[in-house]
Amino acid sequence: MKALLLIAHGSRRESSNDEIRALTAQIRAASRRFDLVEHAFLEMAEPDIARGGDKLAAAGATEIVVLPYFLAAGKHLLTDIPGEVARLEARHPAVRFTLSPHLGAAANMLRLIHEHLEGL
Amino acid sequence: MKALLLIAHGSRRESSNDEIRALTAQIRAASRRFDLVEHAFLEMAEPDIARGGDKLAAAGATEIVVLPYFLAAGKHLLTDIPGEVARLEARHPAVRFTLSPHLGAAANMLRLIHEHLEGL
Repeated sequence: MKALLLIAHGSRRESSNDEIRALTAQIRAASRRFDLVEHAFLEMAEPDIARGGDKLAAAGATEIVVLPYFLAAGKHLLTDIPGEVARLEARHPAVRFTLSPHLGAAANMLRLIHEHLEGL
Repeated sequence: MKALLLIAHGSRRESSNDEIRALTAQIRAASRRFDLVEHAFLEMAEPDIARGGDKLAAAGATEIVVLPYFLAAGKHLLTDIPGEVARLEARHPAVRFTLSPHLGAAANMLRLIHEHLEGL
């Protein structure tokens, strides 16, 4: 079973975290490639990355693609998230983890920006 | 003259800020709608929002679309950026400022995510 774990920064504002929960639900509903889709937060909100990954492994995921829902490659992306994923790998040796490039590196980001600004 | 001001969070890592500079150059090269395109950082990097806006006004912008290059609607987006834009408006009364919804609210975000994950 193939799973997606979307990792967002997390905010003190629950309305911001709710955006991530809603996005995760949208991805889950639309995805044909992932049997399981969950989110996790790096900090300030639950579930954290460890709990998000454990949940997918417990649900039977054999392959987990980790998507950092981040625009910039700062310390969180380059250090914190790989560290959390390494800990998940150590805890679930039978699961194959793949760390995706962060969303800010998406090839079609420029198109998204242009479309988003249409009419403004 | 119509201008775009892309606002990113800013990082202590210059490589992260350089991603924003490169993206700004790409938008500038590709855009048919904006005569001027600049970036600014909310914190930790230069130029800050005040300087970015002042630069566009000094270059002759009569209309400035401000795009928060943020995924989540936390305090930065809901409080800090509107405050900075209000100060720019007060300082440049002849310029029309339009604050765009943040990038995380883009209608086609789901498509971008699916495309970004292709092959993973």
